[in-house]
Amino acid sequence: MVYIIIHILKKNTMFSRIFKKKIYADYATLTPIDGRVLKVMVSIYKDFDKNPGALYSGAVLAKKKLEEVRKKVAETLSNTSSNSVHADEIVFTSGGTESNNMAIQGVIDAWYTTHKEIPCIVTSTIEHPAVKKVIDNLVNKKLVTVSYIPVLPSGVIDFVYLRNVFETENNIVLVSIMLVNNEIGVIQSLSEIAKIIRYHKKKNNSIYPYFHTDGCQAPCYIDMHIDKMGVDLLSLDGGKIYGPRGVGCLYIKRGVKIQGVMYGGGQEFGLRPGTENLPAICGFEQALYMAYAQRKDEVLRLGEMQQYVYKNLPAGVFVNGTTLPGERVVNNINICKKGKDAEFVVFQMDTLGVEVSAVTACQNVQEESRSYVVDALGQDCGASSLRISFGRHTTWSEVRKVVKLIQKIYTI
Amino acid sequence: MVYIIIHILKKNTMFSRIFKKKIYADYATLTPIDGRVLKVMVSIYKDFDKNPGALYSGAVLAKKKLEEVRKKVAETLSNTSSNSVHADEIVFTSGGTESNNMAIQGVIDAWYTTHKEIPCIVTSTIEHPAVKKVIDNLVNKKLVTVSYIPVLPSGVIDFVYLRNVFETENNIVLVSIMLVNNEIGVIQSLSEIAKIIRYHKKKNNSIYPYFHTDGCQAPCYIDMHIDKMGVDLLSLDGGKIYGPRGVGCLYIKRGVKIQGVMYGGGQEFGLRPGTENLPAICGFEQALYMAYAQRKDEVLRLGEMQQYVYKNLPAGVFVNGTTLPGERVVNNINICKKGKDAEFVVFQMDTLGVEVSAVTACQNVQEESRSYVVDALGQDCGASSLRISFGRHTTWSEVRKVVKLIQKIYTI
Repeated sequence: MVYIIIHILKKNTMFSRIFKKKIYADYATLTPIDGRVLKVMVSIYKDFDKNPGALYSGAVLAKKKLEEVRKKVAETLSNTSSNSVHADEIVFTSGGTESNNMAIQGVIDAWYTTHKEIPCIVTSTIEHPAVKKVIDNLVNKKLVTVSYIPVLPSGVIDFVYLRNVFETENNIVLVSIMLVNNEIGVIQSLSEIAKIIRYHKKKNNSIYPYFHTDGCQAPCYIDMHIDKMGVDLLSLDGGKIYGPRGVGCLYIKRGVKIQGVMYGGGQEFGLRPGTENLPAICGFEQALYMAYAQRKDEVLRLGEMQQYVYKNLPAGVFVNGTTLPGERVVNNINICKKGKDAEFVVFQMDTLGVEVSAVTACQNVQEESRSYVVDALGQDCGASSLRISFGRHTTWSEVRKVVKLIQKIYTI
Repeated sequence: MVYIIIHILKKNTMFSRIFKKKIYADYATLTPIDGRVLKVMVSIYKDFDKNPGALYSGAVLAKKKLEEVRKKVAETLSNTSSNSVHADEIVFTSGGTESNNMAIQGVIDAWYTTHKEIPCIVTSTIEHPAVKKVIDNLVNKKLVTVSYIPVLPSGVIDFVYLRNVFETENNIVLVSIMLVNNEIGVIQSLSEIAKIIRYHKKKNNSIYPYFHTDGCQAPCYIDMHIDKMGVDLLSLDGGKIYGPRGVGCLYIKRGVKIQGVMYGGGQEFGLRPGTENLPAICGFEQALYMAYAQRKDEVLRLGEMQQYVYKNLPAGVFVNGTTLPGERVVNNINICKKGKDAEFVVFQMDTLGVEVSAVTACQNVQEESRSYVVDALGQDCGASSLRISFGRHTTWSEVRKVVKLIQKIYTI
């Protein structure tokens, strides 16, 4: 009885502070696992706990389950009308970071099996470390050259610059530009980039460049069917879509020449060795399916919350990057007040019951305490920007509290 | 009520065949997750579902949990008296395959940051594909040369050959020899190998060679405290110790020069990027702890079962590799009858209710339908060998049934 009362009190946001239940406004760094996903995982552990690589019928059932789920992921990424994605184009990985590593390093490794010339990678200045550092490593090893496409103050890449790069650079083998930025939520128009790529492929009569996008932040908010985006490679991550940790996938268009980054067993079409993590893979599929299914409603709901925050920002506080609908995902609000130390604000807000972020959790804070993404917008806000990211469990009552807190902290 | 009766019947092995509950005798390919481990994972998903890289106190708690678990893993791998393993020597990975990739590729990558000469790797002829193929890849890229140490008919490596290699090979940078073979269960005497390595390191006044072992098959059966084994690098995997899939660790002795195989965020001391998979990591720690805690009892129990099978093998069927206690883990029985097609036996046994393996699930069956491990023993049994591997849930009643089935199938 006492437990039930405490439970009810806990659920009631009025009392949440007493029980130290904080308002979570950092969904872009990690989405809590959805209960239904966790249920799927547990049920697979209980009912399909066999190695899909073995020969007996129990293992064959596990293998069947794996292929069924692979097909479902392909269907989710297809336009329903065209079924453009095939199951054999989906490789399951340990997450978005590995998917990005495989996409970039794998394409370059494959390039060198038949070429000697140093290839060029085209990328943006605001990529996630899991793309940026992979490219940095290839540069350090003198295996690639890079053209960095700058972004406009809106956060959208500079298309004039991009077009020019295509006119002047030779040997562009890979274009890697993220769909949704993890810090500022800005959406890049992949279909526009794909058009330019297609034009140059045709002109040069070449299979290159391939087009990769880090789509980890996107599935809950964007219609990202593959043929609409025109990409050859797409990275996804379970931990950003209310799915399990430690799982993701890389979509690899048929015909793309790529190698794995790890070696071992012949799993995942020989591209990703290691016993398949079936419970996590099934959980990932469930999470991706739900992200797509709930997308339209969530975009409406969170879009209104985003507008509400925009409208109620205190004087002197502005939004980093575009606020145009369609150019930014609805769950992201990244704000700056010049001279206001963002890390300090994170601690202040935490003390007052709201969890938000300054720079990405994936930067090495010891090394870099400013955001290179925000700095790329040209406003010198890298150390004074706060990312508020809402999600599936965010309520209006929470949003209002967050706004009140922002008003309080930023007007002191 | 009906459900309860069915449940009781299911539990009763007499009726298990009616309900198609097979006898699982393939623990070496995958251990079913322990219920207590699954419980830990679920509880972490519920209570610590924050990104350990963020700054707010909830995330700091997740980070604390991560470091607490890292310390516990270090303690488990330490001799209790010496506490020889430090928490900062444990890097969590996505599993044994990744750990092996990092150990081998990472050491070679680090070598090339300060050297130009092509290094030599010393390894055995019976390594798991997750070691073998990593080395193959480095050979193909002309980044290393390799000395393959053959094994004796017992499956134990040829120490005369090994000593000779150390006398004749220059530039040995890495020795990678597995602790317990996944197919034949043979244990290599790592401390003996370590002695030879130490002698040559001292003689050459060099920090090289490093000593890596793939220990994935070992924790449930062997006292593998680090300083006893004398290794610099040790790979472990959750899926082989009744733990979660998609998680493992690499022990890296302080001072070992190594790089990661993937690039991105600064997680795991900069060696393994990507949001830490805290639920799986906590489950892994729990599984490793339990493996060690139950080891002595399990070695006795499964050892008796192993002896029972040995004694009751039909005529013409012999055990691949040593049967000497201490030279082979107690859960592994790998048998051969010349000319008997092993894959066919796997299907036969499956039909009759027992799940076993022929070649490892990690080989690409299309490519290789014989076991190179068994072939390395020199008896031409690569296509006619069956691996029976028992485990935590194996009962005497099951063992007797397996033996009866073996007798039936192999005397036809």
